[in-house]
Amino acid sequence: MTKKADTKFKRAAERGSHDFPLACKILDTGKICHVGFSVDEQPYVVPMAYARFENQLLIHGSVASRLVKNLSSGLQCCVTVTHYDGLVYARSTFHSSMNYRSVMVFGVARTIEDTEEKRVGVQALVDHLMPGRREELRQSSSQELNATSLLTLPIETFSIKCRTGPPEDLKSDLDHPVWAGVVPLSVCPGEPVDAPDLLPGISRPDYL
Amino acid sequence: MTKKADTKFKRAAERGSHDFPLACKILDTGKICHVGFSVDEQPYVVPMAYARFENQLLIHGSVASRLVKNLSSGLQCCVTVTHYDGLVYARSTFHSSMNYRSVMVFGVARTIEDTEEKRVGVQALVDHLMPGRREELRQSSSQELNATSLLTLPIETFSIKCRTGPPEDLKSDLDHPVWAGVVPLSVCPGEPVDAPDLLPGISRPDYL
Repeated sequence: MTKKADTKFKRAAERGSHDFPLACKILDTGKICHVGFSVDEQPYVVPMAYARFENQLLIHGSVASRLVKNLSSGLQCCVTVTHYDGLVYARSTFHSSMNYRSVMVFGVARTIEDTEEKRVGVQALVDHLMPGRREELRQSSSQELNATSLLTLPIETFSIKCRTGPPEDLKSDLDHPVWAGVVPLSVCPGEPVDAPDLLPGISRPDYL
Repeated sequence: MTKKADTKFKRAAERGSHDFPLACKILDTGKICHVGFSVDEQPYVVPMAYARFENQLLIHGSVASRLVKNLSSGLQCCVTVTHYDGLVYARSTFHSSMNYRSVMVFGVARTIEDTEEKRVGVQALVDHLMPGRREELRQSSSQELNATSLLTLPIETFSIKCRTGPPEDLKSDLDHPVWAGVVPLSVCPGEPVDAPDLLPGISRPDYL
């Protein structure tokens, strides 16, 4: 039976939310999540690629991996997605901060066993991680599909936390004569690097 | 007593390492970690700012936060730092991948109680998160220092995992006529945004 995680906000509750559309928006903007689970009271936090598909989080990994073995055995997990949006320069150390958006999803993941459900899930993953790419790829063989586990976690018990906007200094600090503001941060793609074994005459696709 | 986390590499061992200087290099490049801990068998994975200071990870948070309360009670934790370096476009779904560097640090954190040690730790945090900023800031009051907990976790039991380089396709896929390569990704700063209450005549500092 799934236990309920404690998703009450202990502090800074004005930064918290349990709004499903907002959770989806944050999840759809990321490609990397951090998956937490505990074995013998030792937590592990593992970075993984993911996609949201309807009201599910999809995570795939090698059948042989520690994460897949443990999660598919029915362990409670927590999957967190964080966007690091900016450094907040206040006038004091104490009020200096970061802007971010994060979602924590709690629950028990299920391994997708049904071949058709798995194929659809893998497609959703590729569509999220590399939009436009799927039609071009060589389809997965049965052997490849069998070597990969696809886990699904319902987005039911979750918790959002965000900070946005300018620094919030004490009134008494406002005349401290230093710059204050926000340096926005985002993940930027660089110039694509061709594979060394790229076939001659193949140009970069538009979706890059 | 600290139990030992299982840091053996279950698979893709060629991507794994336990090299301390490499761990430091990866840790020094990031500003956000994901802290995992379990309460009543429910894992929580919380994004936090951090700094490496010598052979310690420093994490600070409100005295009232769930994370600080639990970690300072001597719970095992796992702190993971991940850099998401690129999308790897292979010719097959199965070999499509991501480039990344990650470090997982395992252990029990200690709350820094000594005022001088705490002041030095907070300085190390500010120097890492906002280099060049510390001298300009209004110093923390005792009240502010007391409202903040500073946790320290030794970088002793840790595990590095990285993927770099081009796609690794099956030989039989190399003539599949699609583009293959890597799209590098990095965190980019945008144009700084002045605080609405910025004093007139203050220009942006060089360290931005």
